[in-house]
Amino acid sequence: MDQESLKNLLLSFKEGKANLDETVERLRHLPFEDLGYARVDHHRMLRQGFPEVIFGRGKTPEQIAGIAARLLEHAPNLLVTRSERAAFEHVRLIAEDAVYHEASGAISVIRDRTEMGGGTIAIVTAGTSDIPVAEEAAITAEVMGNRIERLYDVGVAGIHRVLSQRELLQSARVVVCAAGMEGALPSVVGGLVGVPVIAVPTSIGYGASFGGIAALLGMLNSCAANVAVVNIDNGFGAGFVASLINRA
Amino acid sequence: MDQESLKNLLLSFKEGKANLDETVERLRHLPFEDLGYARVDHHRMLRQGFPEVIFGRGKTPEQIAGIAARLLEHAPNLLVTRSERAAFEHVRLIAEDAVYHEASGAISVIRDRTEMGGGTIAIVTAGTSDIPVAEEAAITAEVMGNRIERLYDVGVAGIHRVLSQRELLQSARVVVCAAGMEGALPSVVGGLVGVPVIAVPTSIGYGASFGGIAALLGMLNSCAANVAVVNIDNGFGAGFVASLINRA
Amino acid sequence: MDQESLKNLLLSFKEGKANLDETVERLRHLPFEDLGYARVDHHRMLRQGFPEVIFGRGKTPEQIAGIAARLLEHAPNLLVTRSERAAFEHVRLIAEDAVYHEASGAISVIRDRTEMGGGTIAIVTAGTSDIPVAEEAAITAEVMGNRIERLYDVGVAGIHRVLSQRELLQSARVVVCAAGMEGALPSVVGGLVGVPVIAVPTSIGYGASFGGIAALLGMLNSCAANVAVVNIDNGFGAGFVASLINRA
Amino acid sequence: MDQESLKNLLLSFKEGKANLDETVERLRHLPFEDLGYARVDHHRMLRQGFPEVIFGRGKTPEQIAGIAARLLEHAPNLLVTRSERAAFEHVRLIAEDAVYHEASGAISVIRDRTEMGGGTIAIVTAGTSDIPVAEEAAITAEVMGNRIERLYDVGVAGIHRVLSQRELLQSARVVVCAAGMEGALPSVVGGLVGVPVIAVPTSIGYGASFGGIAALLGMLNSCAANVAVVNIDNGFGAGFVASLINRA
Amino acid sequence: MDQESLKNLLLSFKEGKANLDETVERLRHLPFEDLGYARVDHHRMLRQGFPEVIFGRGKTPEQIAGIAARLLEHAPNLLVTRSERAAFEHVRLIAEDAVYHEASGAISVIRDRTEMGGGTIAIVTAGTSDIPVAEEAAITAEVMGNRIERLYDVGVAGIHRVLSQRELLQSARVVVCAAGMEGALPSVVGGLVGVPVIAVPTSIGYGASFGGIAALLGMLNSCAANVAVVNIDNGFGAGFVASLINRA
Amino acid sequence: MDQESLKNLLLSFKEGKANLDETVERLRHLPFEDLGYARVDHHRMLRQGFPEVIFGRGKTPEQIAGIAARLLEHAPNLLVTRSERAAFEHVRLIAEDAVYHEASGAISVIRDRTEMGGGTIAIVTAGTSDIPVAEEAAITAEVMGNRIERLYDVGVAGIHRVLSQRELLQSARVVVCAAGMEGALPSVVGGLVGVPVIAVPTSIGYGASFGGIAALLGMLNSCAANVAVVNIDNGFGAGFVASLINRA
Amino acid sequence: MDQESLKNLLLSFKEGKANLDETVERLRHLPFEDLGYARVDHHRMLRQGFPEVIFGRGKTPEQIAGIAARLLEHAPNLLVTRSERAAFEHVRLIAEDAVYHEASGAISVIRDRTEMGGGTIAIVTAGTSDIPVAEEAAITAEVMGNRIERLYDVGVAGIHRVLSQRELLQSARVVVCAAGMEGALPSVVGGLVGVPVIAVPTSIGYGASFGGIAALLGMLNSCAANVAVVNIDNGFGAGFVASLINRA
Amino acid sequence: MDQESLKNLLLSFKEGKANLDETVERLRHLPFEDLGYARVDHHRMLRQGFPEVIFGRGKTPEQIAGIAARLLEHAPNLLVTRSERAAFEHVRLIAEDAVYHEASGAISVIRDRTEMGGGTIAIVTAGTSDIPVAEEAAITAEVMGNRIERLYDVGVAGIHRVLSQRELLQSARVVVCAAGMEGALPSVVGGLVGVPVIAVPTSIGYGASFGGIAALLGMLNSCAANVAVVNIDNGFGAGFVASLINRA
Repeated sequence: MDQESLKNLLLSFKEGKANLDETVERLRHLPFEDLGYARVDHHRMLRQGFPEVIFGRGKTPEQIAGIAARLLEHAPNLLVTRSERAAFEHVRLIAEDAVYHEASGAISVIRDRTEMGGGTIAIVTAGTSDIPVAEEAAITAEVMGNRIERLYDVGVAGIHRVLSQRELLQSARVVVCAAGMEGALPSVVGGLVGVPVIAVPTSIGYGASFGGIAALLGMLNSCAANVAVVNIDNGFGAGFVASLINRA
Repeated sequence: MDQESLKNLLLSFKEGKANLDETVERLRHLPFEDLGYARVDHHRMLRQGFPEVIFGRGKTPEQIAGIAARLLEHAPNLLVTRSERAAFEHVRLIAEDAVYHEASGAISVIRDRTEMGGGTIAIVTAGTSDIPVAEEAAITAEVMGNRIERLYDVGVAGIHRVLSQRELLQSARVVVCAAGMEGALPSVVGGLVGVPVIAVPTSIGYGASFGGIAALLGMLNSCAANVAVVNIDNGFGAGFVASLINRA
Repeated sequence: MDQESLKNLLLSFKEGKANLDETVERLRHLPFEDLGYARVDHHRMLRQGFPEVIFGRGKTPEQIAGIAARLLEHAPNLLVTRSERAAFEHVRLIAEDAVYHEASGAISVIRDRTEMGGGTIAIVTAGTSDIPVAEEAAITAEVMGNRIERLYDVGVAGIHRVLSQRELLQSARVVVCAAGMEGALPSVVGGLVGVPVIAVPTSIGYGASFGGIAALLGMLNSCAANVAVVNIDNGFGAGFVASLINRA
Repeated sequence: MDQESLKNLLLSFKEGKANLDETVERLRHLPFEDLGYARVDHHRMLRQGFPEVIFGRGKTPEQIAGIAARLLEHAPNLLVTRSERAAFEHVRLIAEDAVYHEASGAISVIRDRTEMGGGTIAIVTAGTSDIPVAEEAAITAEVMGNRIERLYDVGVAGIHRVLSQRELLQSARVVVCAAGMEGALPSVVGGLVGVPVIAVPTSIGYGASFGGIAALLGMLNSCAANVAVVNIDNGFGAGFVASLINRA
Repeated sequence: MDQESLKNLLLSFKEGKANLDETVERLRHLPFEDLGYARVDHHRMLRQGFPEVIFGRGKTPEQIAGIAARLLEHAPNLLVTRSERAAFEHVRLIAEDAVYHEASGAISVIRDRTEMGGGTIAIVTAGTSDIPVAEEAAITAEVMGNRIERLYDVGVAGIHRVLSQRELLQSARVVVCAAGMEGALPSVVGGLVGVPVIAVPTSIGYGASFGGIAALLGMLNSCAANVAVVNIDNGFGAGFVASLINRA
Repeated sequence: MDQESLKNLLLSFKEGKANLDETVERLRHLPFEDLGYARVDHHRMLRQGFPEVIFGRGKTPEQIAGIAARLLEHAPNLLVTRSERAAFEHVRLIAEDAVYHEASGAISVIRDRTEMGGGTIAIVTAGTSDIPVAEEAAITAEVMGNRIERLYDVGVAGIHRVLSQRELLQSARVVVCAAGMEGALPSVVGGLVGVPVIAVPTSIGYGASFGGIAALLGMLNSCAANVAVVNIDNGFGAGFVASLINRA
Repeated sequence: MDQESLKNLLLSFKEGKANLDETVERLRHLPFEDLGYARVDHHRMLRQGFPEVIFGRGKTPEQIAGIAARLLEHAPNLLVTRSERAAFEHVRLIAEDAVYHEASGAISVIRDRTEMGGGTIAIVTAGTSDIPVAEEAAITAEVMGNRIERLYDVGVAGIHRVLSQRELLQSARVVVCAAGMEGALPSVVGGLVGVPVIAVPTSIGYGASFGGIAALLGMLNSCAANVAVVNIDNGFGAGFVASLINRA
Repeated sequence: MDQESLKNLLLSFKEGKANLDETVERLRHLPFEDLGYARVDHHRMLRQGFPEVIFGRGKTPEQIAGIAARLLEHAPNLLVTRSERAAFEHVRLIAEDAVYHEASGAISVIRDRTEMGGGTIAIVTAGTSDIPVAEEAAITAEVMGNRIERLYDVGVAGIHRVLSQRELLQSARVVVCAAGMEGALPSVVGGLVGVPVIAVPTSIGYGASFGGIAALLGMLNSCAANVAVVNIDNGFGAGFVASLINRA
């Protein structure tokens, strides 16, 4: 509810179109909808420019499809993260054009392909095992209307692999960089480009990698100043932030 | 060294203007300069659009002034972070217009005030104790040519304080958000705006705040998808990333 | 055994109604009962105003039903936490009116519905995934004779959701607040109300949430002074403490 | 701003006593006051029933006295925590009746001694080294209008010490329990009483006590269900929560 | 190989009964036997007064039975810890009188029941869930020839349960005390007795008990000076140390 | 208060030598003495066979001397741990024969040199830096009436050093073993002897020794079954437990 | 691409054998091959003297076999680590002489058995459970052309076991030492030999061994100066580093 | 004591040149010397090829000089690590040619400059702040008779700095690599060379670098297989291991 509608509301009251209690009531409630098990936030489109994304884990297929149905009434594109195939089967019933992304467990519906971004988002991984996380970022960015460049398996122990792609990296508006183990790739990439690098630690590794903590700490302590970090395996968050940075 | 100069170098060689060993040599070295105690990276201006920033801690005042002198030969603006006043006294000798920022220990020289950013950077803190870290971000962003809006002491336990400034936040291109203790402010701010929020955990707190770890974890686990995080107390990094996001 | 009964015991001895050894024996033993695998503490009703609660994990269905039978001989209401359905099947044999709560694994018997509390307990969650923990708190509070108000899925990234329910919160005598991820909700709720907030971190989240540690640290470091914390996923403890606070 | 004043504001507007922009403006701002370095929250008295408490650490003596002066204009009692004696010297200039509590670093002004609580708050420590934290809780509770019973140095390795004071404990409305090292006292006390126990881990101990973490974990894992925990050394928080529980 | 046999060996050599190389060889090897997958240490009986104990985890049933067979050739009693029932089936083939202890996964053979200890070992648990660990200690102590007193489910939240058994505790030569959650019982027991208390943290608990770390830290920081600690769930180690303490 | 005196008390009451209230009172209080700042536990001599030990840290010199004076009225020997020289100066005023142990900060008074132990306590260190902790153990054991053998600087990287002293170790009734860094010595010593080894991790080391955590974990995970562990740098606890083990 | 071929490339260009764009292109790319899911690094043979090793975890059997096929075109020997038997079945189709190592999950192809090392690599374990990790090291070293000596189950609690093999250890060029639990063996071995000891912590143990962290910390803090450490369970890394040390 | 001298000893006994007790005694003791506060290990020269190094921390200047004097009687070169200047003043009295290394706190005496190594040790740092640790490694390697190449301030955020020195790196027999912050340099260097890389994490950094833990974890998880790690700031250990690798 922006300042304009607030003024309109007040004028309606002044002009007698709305009575006192109604006006108080409308002032107290912002537009969200209660499904019992979840409060759908239709207002988010206005506030953030992108509708709510459904975090699939811990929700039943029925709940996911239910929320999806309500969201699709208000917005053309839809994203569900971390869902099982069973959820997809339910979503497909209410959206035939839904696509399931095996590697990341995402469900996407893209009905509006207007390009929202001003440049390109480069998505980079250190190894092949980091690809599912990177794909979650890629799908998120695509649903949000961005052009993507993928650059996978270019970890620092074979430094020539990333160096040979310097131009591709340097032409991006923002880089998403997923790496497990020691998480060193964002530091090298950060030193090569003049744009923000969104680093995603992945839980790839064993022993003292501690499920991604080693990579997370490596990225937080990056000696490259243009690196910011999201949670371990949070490809969705990386893709989301990158999309906002790339927004024209 | 871009593709164009590479071609020129090769042509010089072909045309006999440069001999074989010279050409090999030039191909092997990128332009950095060795001061003995540090390798100054003049090339960074080209690669990243902003010259090297001097991390003051662990360097003598003489070393800082020495590096500063070399950098100012190639770039109009200068930033030193985490320095003592003694370093400033040395830098002032080679740059009369240098300014020392007590709260953050930064030294800045701003000779080129061209605005580089397309919008505004909002810098927000939860408490008064987070201000030194926020100021480090602010100075960094100013040296890099950005317009700043400061919004301090608006922590979540008095939620109306940040809500009343919603419009200021919503008009920014990017928000830097510094908070200690439980680090909850970026989640609330993230939910209010449609732009990236760069969260900086601060080491403010006691007991189980563990020098900023509680705030860091809070921010990494933010339920707002538009939050990315930099290291504890890393105001410089936050200001740097925000500047790159805001670049027109 | 209060001071009065101690006096009576001594007088019985003096008056010859009890002999020396009997008196020594009764002085040495407080009223608990040994079932071999567990010592049932009937004395707790006197000491704490509520009978022992059975922690189901690690006990066989037979053991749970056995303890339950003994407890129901002395008290009208019964609570078992963290049990499997198999335990419920056994308890139902000795208490037909037992109810099994799927989400939390609790078994409850409520034969005395006298209201013990002076006000209302508001139970709030940040997300839908926090509901099982919140329900454990709710059932505990109900068995202990309290009125409950539920307010679910009002996390801080859509701050208007909790703000719109301010009045409901402000009318409670105590608030239980369950949240995972960054655990920020108790700080916001704590700032809105003038009563104690019992915060329960949940193990909801991934990556650097570390099974609830991020939320736990967030809550312990809350900038709202009226927040106290119980163990991760400890809905029972939160409901128990809240019930004692609400006791008229 | 309660519903009544909201109605009045709307009626003023309808009746033409306030114009549109003024009304919008007043609707947007809640009553806090900006001192430049801090936003004083006069509204808290209404929201929480107790004025803002000044967290002294990281604020200059002048800032503390400045905020104190503004708070005393609106409320009779004042509490500053974790301040140095220098801050007290400044506060004394604006409040002759201020008292400095050496052990805890608190400054208190008590001008209104109306009893707010319905019962007694028992404050218990395991050792003599826990006393400063306990005293912070005690002063907080006194400033907030409560009756206090102190019971110090009754740690569990001499269990008869706490057992001999069972009656004192059992007559309290709420118990605050401060302990370092293994933090076992709240479990024992919790088993003896039927009221909430607010446990405060202290940073007392050495080696694997890790500055209070051992005690904190002990308290979070208490086998007594009526224990809730605040941050390490957070005597203020414990006293605050206990006061709200004790409120008549 | 004690000093006496060393002298004999040297004299054999001097007297020509053994040649030079044989003597060197025997000096270099202490008596252990190589089974390929394990080196059985028959020498331990001499060095420590008790034969090697087989740690079952990570060994095949065949390997366990193989080592057991070799050990039983040199010693009357046998102990295997942490084995599956399948291992027991194999051991039974070579030792009909072997007994399998379901709760702890131990296999014992007791052919010599000579009492080795001078007093009694009291084995105490806080809850019923700690019993498997306590039983591992009990079986170990029994195999090593000790008298045992069991005292289970006497945790500190019902302090009268342990107090009522004070005399039993005070008559022991050493106490083994197993507890999970906050691990407070050894501190209380330690304060009641004048003998060593061997504390075993168990992995019982949830949330911030971190698989026994909370209990471990509690025990290491015990305010009772007569408490020493073994590894989490290490009932065997506790029983072993207690047996050595009790040795007449 | 044993069963006998309980009977006497009851008979006194029956016979009218004590009235009802007196008897109730005496039943409720065990013998400790309240100094205001500390509850001195004279009862401990009876319960544990050794009087209270004063933990010096966090107590003023006056408090330490005050408690010491009271303890010396009831027991011939005295031990203060972790005190400053200033405390010693105060204690000397009330006990001319007090001795200050610089390395460990202990104060001892030994007026009764009766040997309490049945054997010898061997005290072993890995390096020279572990000596202060070992000396705290040695003084404790001496005050408690034990014979000591010291064996210092025999760490495992020069394994022959400890092996050459095997006989000395094997003749002890119990071994105290202090080591920092990787804390491996107790495992080696444990394998050489057939008596309990009380391991004390010391905070010696740097980097990933984490102030003794590496040594602590090493000792808790010892592959020698006769090792039990006390807190980091807790020489007092090790000496205390060893004395109880050695008691005849 | 070494300096010589760079010169040749430049001369080809000068002599007109290659045109400008071709030359620029070849200067930009180092020789690796893109399989879509992985970038095979044929260049590594030149850079490191050993071809790429395939880390099996997280790759499908088809992917593993695909990469293996490409690698075998360029090098005679092949190593896959941490693979399932299913991967082996696929690799066997393209290399009949492949061998699967059950314990470690490694697949090896050895077609060139030229000895590359100048001495022997001794591979030592503390217990039988450490053998799978040690075997991964052994296979790695064998594929890389080294002579191996195995010495298993010689942990420090029976110190004579390792001492009796001193000569075998002292004749090695480098020692790999795998140990779980307290990880003390490398310190003892390090003290016995004058060559580098590569320590591999294993995840063997329970309770406070924390999946190998205790052993890792023990090894990092070794009091023997010739110990360097690789990741938990990283037998491959240990064997690789040892092979490079042993290279003639 | 090697096999040859053992034979000689036995023959002396047989031939009556030594009596029985003498022979037993000599068999029991290996050659170390007891200074009271330290056991000097002259045997190490034989066992390890390099005399004992004095760890200065926690030793008095007198103790350091005392041990140094004894060591110099048996070996030409001497190394003391982590000492204060005061220790150097004492050592200079007994060795005029001693040199003090300010940055690392090392004291060296080099009287024998025979080259022991077969190749060169490259010592590399990421930043200027890592130099003291690197210098400790360099001095260690020099005292042990090695040729050194230093390559400082070549961190990965300016990747061309290290790439331009590839040839220097590739010509070394072993590389020591010191880095703080994210510790990524060893991975990049490891990928460039075919020799072992000994990685030393330094405690350089702030916030989530946790005093070197981030760098340590990064190095342990290196995706380059030729990296082994020593303790945080352990320049001495790195130099020592590198020297052993380089030994001809």
